This record gives sequence, structure tokens and C-alpha cells, in this order.
Amino acid sequence: MAGFLQAGGRAVVVAIDHPLYTWPVPGLERRSELIEQVVEAGADALIASYGTVRDCRAVFGRARAILKLDVTVVSVREYRPAEWAVAYAVEDAARLGADAVLTLVELGTEGELAALASAARVAAAADRVGLPYVCEILPVASPAFPDPFAPAVIAGATRAAAELGAHVVKTAIPSPPAGIREAVDCGVPVLLAGGEPAADRKAYLAGLAEALSAGAAGVAVGRNVWGGGDPAGTVRRLASLVHTGRLR
Amino acid sequence: MAGFLQAGGRAVVVAIDHPLYTWPVPGLERRSELIEQVVEAGADALIASYGTVRDCRAVFGRARAILKLDVTVVSVREYRPAEWAVAYAVEDAARLGADAVLTLVELGTEGELAALASAARVAAAADRVGLPYVCEILPVASPAFPDPFAPAVIAGATRAAAELGAHVVKTAIPSPPAGIREAVDCGVPVLLAGGEPAADRKAYLAGLAEALSAGAAGVAVGRNVWGGGDPAGTVRRLASLVHTGRLR
Amino acid sequence: MAGFLQAGGRAVVVAIDHPLYTWPVPGLERRSELIEQVVEAGADALIASYGTVRDCRAVFGRARAILKLDVTVVSVREYRPAEWAVAYAVEDAARLGADAVLTLVELGTEGELAALASAARVAAAADRVGLPYVCEILPVASPAFPDPFAPAVIAGATRAAAELGAHVVKTAIPSPPAGIREAVDCGVPVLLAGGEPAADRKAYLAGLAEALSAGAAGVAVGRNVWGGGDPAGTVRRLASLVHTGRLR
Amino acid sequence: MAGFLQAGGRAVVVAIDHPLYTWPVPGLERRSELIEQVVEAGADALIASYGTVRDCRAVFGRARAILKLDVTVVSVREYRPAEWAVAYAVEDAARLGADAVLTLVELGTEGELAALASAARVAAAADRVGLPYVCEILPVASPAFPDPFAPAVIAGATRAAAELGAHVVKTAIPSPPAGIREAVDCGVPVLLAGGEPAADRKAYLAGLAEALSAGAAGVAVGRNVWGGGDPAGTVRRLASLVHTGRLR
Amino acid sequence: MAGFLQAGGRAVVVAIDHPLYTWPVPGLERRSELIEQVVEAGADALIASYGTVRDCRAVFGRARAILKLDVTVVSVREYRPAEWAVAYAVEDAARLGADAVLTLVELGTEGELAALASAARVAAAADRVGLPYVCEILPVASPAFPDPFAPAVIAGATRAAAELGAHVVKTAIPSPPAGIREAVDCGVPVLLAGGEPAADRKAYLAGLAEALSAGAAGVAVGRNVWGGGDPAGTVRRLASLVHTGRLR
Repeated sequence: MAGFLQAGGRAVVVAIDHPLYTWPVPGLERRSELIEQVVEAGADALIASYGTVRDCRAVFGRARAILKLDVTVVSVREYRPAEWAVAYAVEDAARLGADAVLTLVELGTEGELAALASAARVAAAADRVGLPYVCEILPVASPAFPDPFAPAVIAGATRAAAELGAHVVKTAIPSPPAGIREAVDCGVPVLLAGGEPAADRKAYLAGLAEALSAGAAGVAVGRNVWGGGDPAGTVRRLASLVHTGRLR
Repeated sequence: MAGFLQAGGRAVVVAIDHPLYTWPVPGLERRSELIEQVVEAGADALIASYGTVRDCRAVFGRARAILKLDVTVVSVREYRPAEWAVAYAVEDAARLGADAVLTLVELGTEGELAALASAARVAAAADRVGLPYVCEILPVASPAFPDPFAPAVIAGATRAAAELGAHVVKTAIPSPPAGIREAVDCGVPVLLAGGEPAADRKAYLAGLAEALSAGAAGVAVGRNVWGGGDPAGTVRRLASLVHTGRLR
Repeated sequence: MAGFLQAGGRAVVVAIDHPLYTWPVPGLERRSELIEQVVEAGADALIASYGTVRDCRAVFGRARAILKLDVTVVSVREYRPAEWAVAYAVEDAARLGADAVLTLVELGTEGELAALASAARVAAAADRVGLPYVCEILPVASPAFPDPFAPAVIAGATRAAAELGAHVVKTAIPSPPAGIREAVDCGVPVLLAGGEPAADRKAYLAGLAEALSAGAAGVAVGRNVWGGGDPAGTVRRLASLVHTGRLR
Repeated sequence: MAGFLQAGGRAVVVAIDHPLYTWPVPGLERRSELIEQVVEAGADALIASYGTVRDCRAVFGRARAILKLDVTVVSVREYRPAEWAVAYAVEDAARLGADAVLTLVELGTEGELAALASAARVAAAADRVGLPYVCEILPVASPAFPDPFAPAVIAGATRAAAELGAHVVKTAIPSPPAGIREAVDCGVPVLLAGGEPAADRKAYLAGLAEALSAGAAGVAVGRNVWGGGDPAGTVRRLASLVHTGRLR
Repeated sequence: MAGFLQAGGRAVVVAIDHPLYTWPVPGLERRSELIEQVVEAGADALIASYGTVRDCRAVFGRARAILKLDVTVVSVREYRPAEWAVAYAVEDAARLGADAVLTLVELGTEGELAALASAARVAAAADRVGLPYVCEILPVASPAFPDPFAPAVIAGATRAAAELGAHVVKTAIPSPPAGIREAVDCGVPVLLAGGEPAADRKAYLAGLAEALSAGAAGVAVGRNVWGGGDPAGTVRRLASLVHTGRLR
């Protein structure tokens, strides 16, 4: 069982790994300040890079560290789609005292098989050292997945991750959000990826609420926490939603 | 000797690894329920993914776990043919307490040589740790194998697997099914792959019966067990056929 | 020194590894029967696959086991030329109790450099564990080797294998057979590969006799032993030729 | 913390690794003489090749050795752009008694992802053996980086290196030099790469002074130290600038 | 320090590794005879293949063994240019009791970067086990090196090898031979490769004398020793030249 899940198997996770591969990242210029705010506001865990887990761990406080093990090319201003490569080992995570590991699998890309094989190896290695493995698995618009947000596609992705050995799955919110029900049937906790910054914050939170009601275990949000104003307030709203089911 | 073969060297194996790479899989939405049914009905062993062996082992009961070591791309609705990559090690199987390991070799594909070399390495590694290796070897319609179900083709595939060091071979039912005799001459137990869901259930079982009479050691069936109604009944019929030679 | 060479440094070797990569193989349908016959008739050693050495070793009797470490694609009826990949380790041979290891190097093919590098690694690894390494090295008709049976070509191949660290070399019979003298000058024992089934058995044996008189250490024959009738008689004739120099 | 940084976290580093991949290198014909001069003049550390660290260490005196772990093709007279490959291990650095390790990452090149993944592995390995890792990260003029010296581009590169786990970052001086402020916000010490030999020495030093005032931790200069006359005098000027903030 | 260098840091090395990759090699048909002659005549060391060092070491006498670690394709009569692959490990050399190791780096070829990276790894591994590493580095006529014998090109190659960690460098004689002075400045002993068989023996020896006067540490000659008549006489002449500076 993943230790960062709270009683009830639910979690609010904040992703702060973006500067590993893109810049600028408004809101994340100074890591420690943001980390302190979101932890204080109730984040259960943070997804962070090797450098951040090593150098900023002291300010994580009671929040758990989920170490991202893969890297990609650096984008400045315009995002460059590219493959990801697993570069850190589960042993590196254990040495840093991280609480879990994460890799990304994009379905429908040229590197899909390599990413799936890496995920399988990480899952087995994580069991070997006793760390939970979070598989972030995202269908990408492609000939294989013309509608990457269809509930059956999200469910197929989630189930594949569960079969590979993920202890927790992070995936996209399907359309409609209640379609996550098909994915959660596999019994592995599913975290909802935050995705693109939402123009309509209210509709965004309503979608999360719908997916959480349908069985999602929590959220793993980045830009929608620190990309706008008031990250602490956003985390508090997410925590209320995830842990009590109420929108504040 | 493969421990999942019963007295007389025969076995009914149910394959439930499909959600690793395809979705939806009607009948396998909830793993534990299906596993309980087929084990209760007499399945001797299950072919399953790493995640399923790790998370659902408690419900396997007396059935043995054959861990599938390779992965491929994820298909939703339409099957995408692609290469397979061995991603788990025999040591992972031993750590999970699996009873055997399996990899797939497709003959006539671009990845054939790599798959054969992987099979050879797995065979040797399996001997090193004392686990039986099941080689699933399937000729694929291709310039090299215009008729992949010809008895000589199935026999060539089976014999190659035996020479590579497989302890048990899983292969396709040749046409005609009695043609399996040429394959079983090599002395290694041969399990008949279930294949596509059969439209004519009666003809399908008659074909299995013919191949079993001709020397096959058993069946390894997936979709034809859980893809239609009454998986328990189907397993009982297969068990009767395999272990007593009678169609019930 | 290779332990399978008899007093006088000579040996009759029978190759039975063909079903690893081709089918049907008339005469090798049942391995144990053929092995018993040729051992009884005087074979000093057998070249065999991992599966055969592991599963049939009991019937090898006093004959030594030379484990073939490489694999290639499976051909049914029509031979498909393809690369070979070393898949088993010298440690696997030692664990099985094999007496020697063998890999194939084809000169003039696309995979030549990789095969030579593998041969070098196997030679060093074989020394590390104390097993002799037999390098089967065959020039292939190609722009680099328009006449692959010319004595200088066979000598160049043999000498390269000796420099790589082979303890014994298996190569093709040059044309004329007495041309093997240039190859044996390097001081490493040279075994004559059997090659294609001979239409004229008498001429075939005369060619072997000529090459043995010119210094070859023995023969390593497959199809010309078990591919026609009377394998035991053929082995007896080869043993007489190799060990006494007389054609019976 | 990188041991070669002086009190105040500042350092003057001289790079003398150029003959590893280019020739002639006026000023570096005799390594020991140059090393003695720049160390005497106040260099805190030297970036050097494996051969130089091993063979000339005695003359490093109190200066620290930063071992460059990667290699590229050899250019004579005309520089040939090419990929770099990490060839030495952090363990080699530890065995030689080096004080830190360095690899180069070029952003916008074909080898970018491989270089980033290598950097990640080196960062983790350096932590394992307790050596600081200096990541030299340079955006290269390319479709992805039409203006490789823009402050946001330099900041993105620096931050990526920090997230990867670099203990110190070496990067290009942005244009304008005070733009380095955006890069140093990440909290990891930033060394300014010396770059092309400066035609206008005075303007060059003024630019360094501007970037140091904006927060850079020091300089890592090669050709601008030993490529003109008076390397000792240049190092003294740089030391004054870096450690006291005054241009002498 | 390389143990095969005599007092004064000088050495006459005879290369006998050619049959590893080419045939026929007039003069090297029987290895032991040639080895005995050249050792008796004063060769300080021999560059030889794995097979020759292992099988003929007894006749090396007081001469040191430099093990060549890389292999390439086999040429018969017409030389086929191709890449080289490092196939033996420094540990193999130590196990055989070799006194040094050697690999070849060709500059300007497609495999250059891989060869340089291999050289770097071998240099570090050689230090680990305490064996000297001889880097044979040869610029090849190519767009990058239109004049591969120019003194600056030979010096660039030599210096790169020194920076990589070579203990001794073997390179081509520049044109003019006294141009070797630029190469020897780096302080690592430089051996002159023998090159193509010389038509004018007297001019050839005068060139060697000129390069030795300019600072070369010795010669590493193959075909010009055993490719003509009187190898013992040639070695005696080279020994006189290298160790006393006199042409006899």
C-alpha cells in the first residue's frame, strides 16, 4: 500500500517537477516557498525531481516525497514533445529517503513499448526495495487513440498500469469525468492528473468532484495549484474535496 | 518437470493476462471473481501478469501461477500488432512465489530473433533458480509461414522451443488438430492455445479432443473461458476433457 | 586442450543441433534413439542445443557434450538465412555439465563483426571457467569471399579463429580438400564440417580422407550422418577414417 | 556542498581539458607549466581530463581537480561539432582522488536526451560516492533555441540542471550578463563559462563583473585564461573580481 | 610507467597481431618460429592477439606481451576497411599474465567516437588492475583529415590519447618525420607505427632515425619486420637505432 495515501485511501498530491523540463514556470521560481505553502495547506505528497527531493526535503515537512525517475528534453516557452528516459534507479530513491517513485508512460507514441517495459522494471524494482510505484499513464492523441479521453481508453490505460504492477495510477480525467468508474474497477487507487491550467476554475473543480464521486482516490495537480494565484487556497479546496467530498 | 502438470502430465491452464495489453476484456473486469470461479471449477494453473500475481495471489487457491514476463503496447478496441519485450526477470517471479514463467515468441515477425534469444536466456535463468519455463511459440501468417497452422510448422515451432530449453510449450492448434502428433514427438509437454473466441463451441471442443487424443498435454485457454458466458462450466468441461478424455 | 579429442588429438563429432532452427529434420525426430546409435557406433562428442544437453544427457554415455551457445530464426522447409545471436553463457554450459562450447561465425555477412566480437568474448569466458571453445567459422559466398572454399580463405578463417582464442576450429572442407594443409599450420585442431548431404557418398568420404591426410583433426558431421540411412554405419566408417586413417 | 567553492561560495575555475578533443591549443602545449602558473595565481580548481588529473596531479597544489567524464571526436584546426559520450565513471574519479566530476549537456542537439539522462545518472552516482557534480549545460543555436543566450533560456538550462541533481552549474553568460539573475534564483551555485576568446578584454571582464554582481558564483574559464598572453595575470584579475568584486 | 620500456624509456616492439584479421601474412605462417627469432634479436615487447598470448607465451622469453583487445572483420587478400570492436577486457589480459593492453582508435571514421569512448574506458580499467594501456591512434584520410600525416594532426591525435589516459601512444610517422616533435611534447612516450612495407628500406630507416632523434620513444613495427626477409636482422637494426641511436 502506498504510504502517502491517507486513511480512506485518498490523497492530495502536488506535482512540482515541471522545471526539470520546461521554463519559465510561473509560481515555481523559488521551490522552498511554494513547498512550504502547499504542505501547510494540506498536501499529502509532492511529485518532485531528484534535485528537489535531495535539496529541499527539509521543507517537505509531513508531506511524502514521490521521486520522478525519468527525464526529457528541455523546453523554453514552447513545449517540445519528446521521449522520456528513465534515468534514476529505485535505489537512488531509497538512498534519498523518498517515499515512492513515479515514471510516465505515454500511450500511442513511438516510445510507448520502451516506456511500458521501463515501467514494468521499475514496478519490480520498487517491490524489491519496498517502495510504492506510481505509474503516470496518459493516452496521447494519435492514430491509435483518436479520442484519448474516452472512458474506455482511460480505463485501458489504468488497467494496463495495474497489470504491470503499479501500486497507484495517475491518469487523465476522462470525458465525462464520471467515466473514471470504468478505470477504478481494477482495484488500484487512481489519482486524477491536473492537466492544462483551467480557464473556468469552477467547472474544473466540479469535474474533479464528479470523478472523485465515481471512485477516484485523489488528485495529482501541478499547474492548477501553483500556476494561478493562491496555491494554498487551491490546495485547501482540493483537500476538502478529496478528504470530505465537499467543495468549499 | 513443471509442477503445475497433474498426475499423467496433463493440465488445464486459464490465461488471464489480456488486460496487460488490451481493453475492454469482457469477463475480466473484476479479476478476483473470475479467478475464484475458474479455480473452483478445476483450473490447474493461471497465466497472469506481474500485477495480478502480486495482488491477487490469495485467491489463486491451489492453482499454480505462471508469470508472463513480457509486455507489449496497449490496444483499446482495435488490436495493434507490435513487438513484445521481456521486462521482468526470473528472479522477480521467484520473489513473488510464482510457480513458472512464460514468454511469447512469434515466428515470422521482425522481432523473431530477439524473442528467440530472450527465450533462450529465460530458459537458462529459469533453470538457475529452479522454475519451469513455458515457451508460448506461435507462427504468424507471413512470407516465411504462409500457412501458420500447418502441422509441420507447428511441429517446427514446438521443437525449436524444446531445443531452446522450454520445459513446457504452448502453441496453436494445428489444422487438422490431430496434426499435433508431429509436434509432441519431441517429448516436451505441449499445451494448446485457446485462440480466437470460437463461434461454434461444439466444433471447438471436438478439435481440442482430437488434439488431446493425438498427444497434447493440455490446454491454455483465455477468451474461450471467460469471453463467453459460464466460465466455470467451460473450465469443468475442459478439465473433464483433459484429465479423463471425456467430453461432458 | 579440448577433452573431447582422443589420443592423437583426433575426434569424430556428430552435430544434432539442427532442430533448433529448422524443420523437418529427417532422422532426428526422436533425439534419444539417434544419440544412442551414434554413441554406440563411436562418436566422440555431440554438438547439441541447450534443451538437448539438459534433457538427453543421460543417453550421451561416454560421448562429450559440446553446447551450441547461439540461436537463429526458425525455418520450415525452406532455409531462411539470418543472423545468429549468442544467447547462452559459458556459465550455463558449466552448470549443465557440458564439456565444451561452440558458436558460429559467418564471414562476409552483415553480422560478421558482431559474431567475431562474440566469439572473442566466449573464448575469454571459456578460459575463465575452464571449458574448451570450438569456433565454427564459415566464409559465406559474398563480395568479400567470391570463392568461399578456396584454401587461402579457409586458412584465413581458421587462423582468425585461432587468434581469437578458439581451442578447436570447425570449418568447411576447402576445394581441393588437401588445401586444408594451409589452415592446419596454425597449430589449432581443425574439424571438417559435414556440409550439405552428399549425393556421391564414396566421393564424399574420399574428400574427407584427403583432408584428414593433410592434417585435419577430425570431422563434425550432421546431415551426412543422420540425414540418410544407417547413421551407425556412417559413424563407424568416419571413426575408422579419423582414428586409423583407413576407409572401411 | 562543492568543496572547491571558497568561503562565500565563490570560485575561480580554469578549464584545461581542451586538448582532449582539439588541437593545436596555444598556451596548453606543456600542461605542467600552465597549471603551476594558474594555481600560483589563485585558481581554486581546474577542469581537466582523466589523463591530466592522473599524470599532473602533483602540480595542482592546493587547487581542486574537477574530472571531465565525457569525450568527443578529435578536431584539428577546424572544430567538428559532434555528440559527447560519458566514458569515465564517478568511481574512476574517486580512485584518482578527484574532488568533483563534470559532464557537458548541449540543449537543442540530437544527443540532448541522452546527455540529460547521463547527467542524471552521474548526479546520482556522485551522491553515492560523495563527490560534487558540476553540470555544464549549454543551449546551442537551433530551432528549439534560436537565441541561446536569452536570459530565460540560460535560466531554463540552469534550473533543469539543478532539478537533475547538479551541485554546481556551469553555463554561458546570458545577454545581457545581468540576466543571469533569473538563473541563480534556483539556489544552486552558477559558474560562468568563459566562451570564445574575447577580442575586447576590457568589455569581457566588465560583462563578467555584471554577471557576478547579479549573483553568479564564479567563473570557469579556459581559452580566455591561457589562450592569450599572461595567464597568471588573467587569473589574478579573475580572482579579484570573483572574490572581492573589484576589477584590478 | 609501462614496464616494457627499457632504461631510457625506449622500446622496440614487434606487432604480430595481423592474422587476427587478414590473410595470408607471409612471414607469420608459423607464430612460434618468428617469435623466437625476433625475441632472440632483441624485441622488447610483442603486440599480439588473445590466442597468441595464451598459446605461445612460453616462447616470448624475456619479451613483454601487449594484448590487443579489439577485433575487426577478416580480409583475405584484399583489405576490407571496417570498424573495430573492443571484445576482450583488461581483466582477460591480467588473467593471461599480459604486461600491457592496446586498442586502436581511427580518427575521421564513422566509429571514431565509439572508439574514443572505448579507449577511455580501457584506460581507466587498466589503471584499476595496474596494467599500462597503449593507445594506437591513427588519423585516417577523410574530410576531417585531408592530410593525416601532417605533424599537427599526428600531434593532435597523440595529445588526445594522452588526455584520455594512455600510458604509451602508438601513432603514424608524420611527414616530415621530425614533425613528431610536436607530438612528444605532451610527455607521454610515443611509439612509431611501422606502416606499409617500405619499398626503400634505407629511406625507411632514415625516417625512423629522424623521428627518434626528434623524441619518439621507439618503434612498433610489424610488416616491415616479418614481411620481408631476415626479420632477426631487421630487429637488430631497429634495436641499435632505438637504444643507441646508431644505424648499423
